[in-house]
Amino acid sequence: MYDLIIIGGGAAALSAATYALGKRLEVRIIYQNLGGKSGWRQNLTGQEGAEQLPASDAVRSLERYISMQVGVTLHDGVTKVTRYGDGFQIETFRNGTLEAHALIIATGAGPVRLDVPGAEELLGQGLGYSVTTHSHLLEGKTSAVIGSTTRALRGAAELSRTAAKVYLIIPNETNMVAPMINSLQQRPNVEVLVGYNVQEVVGPMNVEELVISHAGKTRRLAVDAAFVDLGLIPHSEIVKGLVQTDDQGFIVIDGHNRTTLPGLFAAGDVTTAFGEQALIAAGDGARAALSAYDYLLARAPQLEAEGAD
Amino acid sequence: MYDLIIIGGGAAALSAATYALGKRLEVRIIYQNLGGKSGWRQNLTGQEGAEQLPASDAVRSLERYISMQVGVTLHDGVTKVTRYGDGFQIETFRNGTLEAHALIIATGAGPVRLDVPGAEELLGQGLGYSVTTHSHLLEGKTSAVIGSTTRALRGAAELSRTAAKVYLIIPNETNMVAPMINSLQQRPNVEVLVGYNVQEVVGPMNVEELVISHAGKTRRLAVDAAFVDLGLIPHSEIVKGLVQTDDQGFIVIDGHNRTTLPGLFAAGDVTTAFGEQALIAAGDGARAALSAYDYLLARAPQLEAEGAD
Repeated sequence: MYDLIIIGGGAAALSAATYALGKRLEVRIIYQNLGGKSGWRQNLTGQEGAEQLPASDAVRSLERYISMQVGVTLHDGVTKVTRYGDGFQIETFRNGTLEAHALIIATGAGPVRLDVPGAEELLGQGLGYSVTTHSHLLEGKTSAVIGSTTRALRGAAELSRTAAKVYLIIPNETNMVAPMINSLQQRPNVEVLVGYNVQEVVGPMNVEELVISHAGKTRRLAVDAAFVDLGLIPHSEIVKGLVQTDDQGFIVIDGHNRTTLPGLFAAGDVTTAFGEQALIAAGDGARAALSAYDYLLARAPQLEAEGAD
Repeated sequence: MYDLIIIGGGAAALSAATYALGKRLEVRIIYQNLGGKSGWRQNLTGQEGAEQLPASDAVRSLERYISMQVGVTLHDGVTKVTRYGDGFQIETFRNGTLEAHALIIATGAGPVRLDVPGAEELLGQGLGYSVTTHSHLLEGKTSAVIGSTTRALRGAAELSRTAAKVYLIIPNETNMVAPMINSLQQRPNVEVLVGYNVQEVVGPMNVEELVISHAGKTRRLAVDAAFVDLGLIPHSEIVKGLVQTDDQGFIVIDGHNRTTLPGLFAAGDVTTAFGEQALIAAGDGARAALSAYDYLLARAPQLEAEGAD
């Protein structure tokens, strides 16, 4: 039986694992993709990877550290998590069933995909899901942001500082963050298109046009790039029914990154925490590990018996 | 008038500054010590600085990045913060009065000092205020932890895994974290001394003994090292009366690192957030910067007028 199992391979999981190893816990990290979203890059036409954010550096150094730990990581998928006594059983595809006293869920979230003709083909060719890390590449150009999340609005605002033109396409009039949209509408190079749906992303090799429509009216927008931010879908299925989630499935946590089930902690994009950024997730991952450590200490006979050198 | 001023030089401040610069805000960082606590090292007898925690690397990379930003940092002290319209005036020792639309307080906290003979002279010579980062250096040795904070108990537990003997000296019987203490008392190499006060730290060159007393009874404990964790004092004086603090002076924040005053954000050890660790503070600093950015965007005429290139 392990002290702690961490599920996930992104910034939150890597950071949690680093702290847990520093505390000499018997820990295993079960991941499908090491590095998470920060390992994923998007190319924009003719402009590649110039950005080197210090935050990404920080996460990469955690990734390097974890990938050097022999026998700690399991490249595998988790199919089911169940309560087992006051611990947990974790069923995997290839490594059978593992047991742990405590568990950290850091499985992240994926974007709601734009499901229209051209969207899949042009992904990474001017169409992307992460506006904030690319806005500086679009100076003097025309781009579109599709969505009404805070991140979408933040991204549109950032683009508008240097872009020639920014279209902000808001398919759904509900859930709008009114003060931000009002302030965006005051910017001369921003056009807000409320109620429009994207019908097609037009290439052929890179994004050149978006076809959008509203109440039977169709428009074609010439753009150099388009960013989709229609929200996130948390990867919380494996603990469904075990812990409280919000109406979108994000795991509810407190200020100690504890879920509603003792011994089960969560961090990163899969939770209700604010701020989908690698460094924020890394901090929360460390906090979850520290909480898990305190939890294990308070029931320490097991910890001492198995963890001591 | 700046978009944002960040006060502090530790992990939270460095990380907030990195994010704010990434968002191209007009930002200034006013600090007294760049690097904060993670820049501070303690020597134990004959064993120096072997530890290279990946988390410290991450914070150092933020520090490097910020120290390269010309004209962004001000090495100065802040004497007073006042509300000015819906922004802030920040009075400094050497740079006069600065104005900003938003403010992040990341001034950290300092330890409650052990004020007995020998404590000052032997600081760094076997007496320290940070047990968690040094426990691996005390394998097979005898050490003492003085204090009853969660951190103190966590530190004692960690030491006890490899140390020959750990004295846990708890001067104050209130505020004890009972489950953790119970579990510590079960460990054969831990001796819990409740109600004892430290009278003297005995050298001459390195810590060799602690003199402790309880109800007129005095004991001398031979130790190789002693760690003090009597709690933290938040550096929140400059915003006293402006924002809500808890009964110890820690700034109350919500899940977005907002204080009770709009436009004023806080992160790191000066806040009520759980987990005094560099990487946690860095994550919270980034979250504070993101919140400040959203706040500025929602009142964006100023942001656009002054921040645009």
